[in-house]
Amino acid sequence: MKFEDFKIVATASQVPERVVDNHELSTMMDTSDEWIVKRTGIKRRHIAVTETTSSLCTSVAQQLLAQSELQPDDIDLIVVATMSPDYLTPSTSATVQGNIGATKAMAFDIDAACSGFVYGLKLIRQMLMADHKKNAILIGGETLSKLLDWSDRSTAVLFGDGAGGVLVTNETTADGSYLADSMTTLGSLGGYLTAGKTGQPSPFSSDHQPFKPFFKMNGRRVYQFAVKNVPDSVNHALSVAKLAPTDVDHYVLHQANVRIVERIADELELPMTKFPVNIGEFGNTAAASEPILLDQLVKHNIIKRGDTIALSGFGGGLTVGTMLLTY
Amino acid sequence: MKFEDFKIVATASQVPERVVDNHELSTMMDTSDEWIVKRTGIKRRHIAVTETTSSLCTSVAQQLLAQSELQPDDIDLIVVATMSPDYLTPSTSATVQGNIGATKAMAFDIDAACSGFVYGLKLIRQMLMADHKKNAILIGGETLSKLLDWSDRSTAVLFGDGAGGVLVTNETTADGSYLADSMTTLGSLGGYLTAGKTGQPSPFSSDHQPFKPFFKMNGRRVYQFAVKNVPDSVNHALSVAKLAPTDVDHYVLHQANVRIVERIADELELPMTKFPVNIGEFGNTAAASEPILLDQLVKHNIIKRGDTIALSGFGGGLTVGTMLLTY
Repeated sequence: MKFEDFKIVATASQVPERVVDNHELSTMMDTSDEWIVKRTGIKRRHIAVTETTSSLCTSVAQQLLAQSELQPDDIDLIVVATMSPDYLTPSTSATVQGNIGATKAMAFDIDAACSGFVYGLKLIRQMLMADHKKNAILIGGETLSKLLDWSDRSTAVLFGDGAGGVLVTNETTADGSYLADSMTTLGSLGGYLTAGKTGQPSPFSSDHQPFKPFFKMNGRRVYQFAVKNVPDSVNHALSVAKLAPTDVDHYVLHQANVRIVERIADELELPMTKFPVNIGEFGNTAAASEPILLDQLVKHNIIKRGDTIALSGFGGGLTVGTMLLTY
Repeated sequence: MKFEDFKIVATASQVPERVVDNHELSTMMDTSDEWIVKRTGIKRRHIAVTETTSSLCTSVAQQLLAQSELQPDDIDLIVVATMSPDYLTPSTSATVQGNIGATKAMAFDIDAACSGFVYGLKLIRQMLMADHKKNAILIGGETLSKLLDWSDRSTAVLFGDGAGGVLVTNETTADGSYLADSMTTLGSLGGYLTAGKTGQPSPFSSDHQPFKPFFKMNGRRVYQFAVKNVPDSVNHALSVAKLAPTDVDHYVLHQANVRIVERIADELELPMTKFPVNIGEFGNTAAASEPILLDQLVKHNIIKRGDTIALSGFGGGLTVGTMLLTY
């Protein structure tokens, strides 16, 4: 039986040039390489100097076009998942659309924080299929460095900047790529992780707080959420697809903390060899973390055509989502 | 022939209590009621004091639930279109989801500025149908007052705060609601309308600009864009639906400026009676403007079941979009 479905035809990523390692951070705040590595697995992160969210995303889009040998006019839809756009308007996706000259593409941003990439993958698949359109670009891009209080060692050490994305094509095929998904939002827990207060209070506003757009996190609560809700999300998607945890070749998880990934592997009773990790190099890059990791795994030929992969995002909202697909 | 399609089952809106009229603005900056009314049609606007984007959107969601007699658990999807969220995480939609207890709903924000509502209407329709899910809430909500430089008379007089939304249901019916849509992004023109720079430059950033998250607009260029591209968008959607401009009963246009609406009516060779306007009361409320207007027209029984309506949004991105549907 043939049916319309989507396929990831290209992956790409781009991070800022400037590397800030734990030793450098320890000259800025009371922390140490040993402390950070032990608790998070992070050794260094890439931090924007001249780069912006839209410039990183534009580079990703250009790479995707080059790899797939498509023309800008072939792109029907561009979605950027971000919680750190340069501006609230124009959207990052509109800027990318203009920069690459994809004049036929509808473009908008979505915000589901660290789950933005999997949420976006679900929606671009559904929009392409509903419109019988052909090609979409989905990018997760962040410059979280501008949302950090660089004097707060409890959050400043955790995050990094970068962008990653995929070009997906909708095609009628005998072997569809999509297997199942499970997307959950827990808005009542949203206060455990906040960042990016926007704007400035107007003269009429009763808000007299000093402007602080920085991350605030209840680390313990977010950890508890992740180690329970990510396995639940994965198991739900697996049950829909009628697959066992061992049937998945690669779990491409949001890179928030290597200790969280280890606990999730443990909960699913799987070895860490199924859970590739690159947080040591990039830190937590929110919506960018899964597509950066995916791109590395594809480029290093670790993920191969035909492999079953699980993409799971989790974080601010709180949100969690899993998509299972055949690469 | 019966087919799966969506229907707007309820509309709602909420604006801040505090009204700021042109006379009051003229005590704050060098402007006058006459000048503002003549050029824009705006007499007053509602400005948030204690209200926030998420509190306005929560009120809209509560009204939608009450009107439709659905339970929070009946909602499958919540999308908020906004360019002025309270925070970059949690998303406004996640906060609304938590506030109303819609624990089964997937929630995320989208940003396509003033076109956010029509872009969102397209995507929630496609996502509901793809998943064979039942109920979605789409809200356009803004507190643009926090993105205004209140000493800049060229922009501060134009915008207001508010939220409006719809509850849509996916059902199998003989008379589908959806007729056609046309969505276009012109990212290369994005620089003509910018607002909401986010975050604070990190210690590593080469950005040393003072923090100004305020609207900047090339009014002439945006006007030229609107009076050309909105008629083009409407005409394209009409041609897909095989309808003439006169077949549409009500053009529910984004309320940016009454002069723009008049020019669009003129371009389409239609009388202004088909173009309801409420900008006098609310100013430009970006993604909230169409659903607030739609709600007023439904509540005043001007839009009735069976009427053909065109929803058109246009603005930052630049973006433009039209959806034709049978109410």
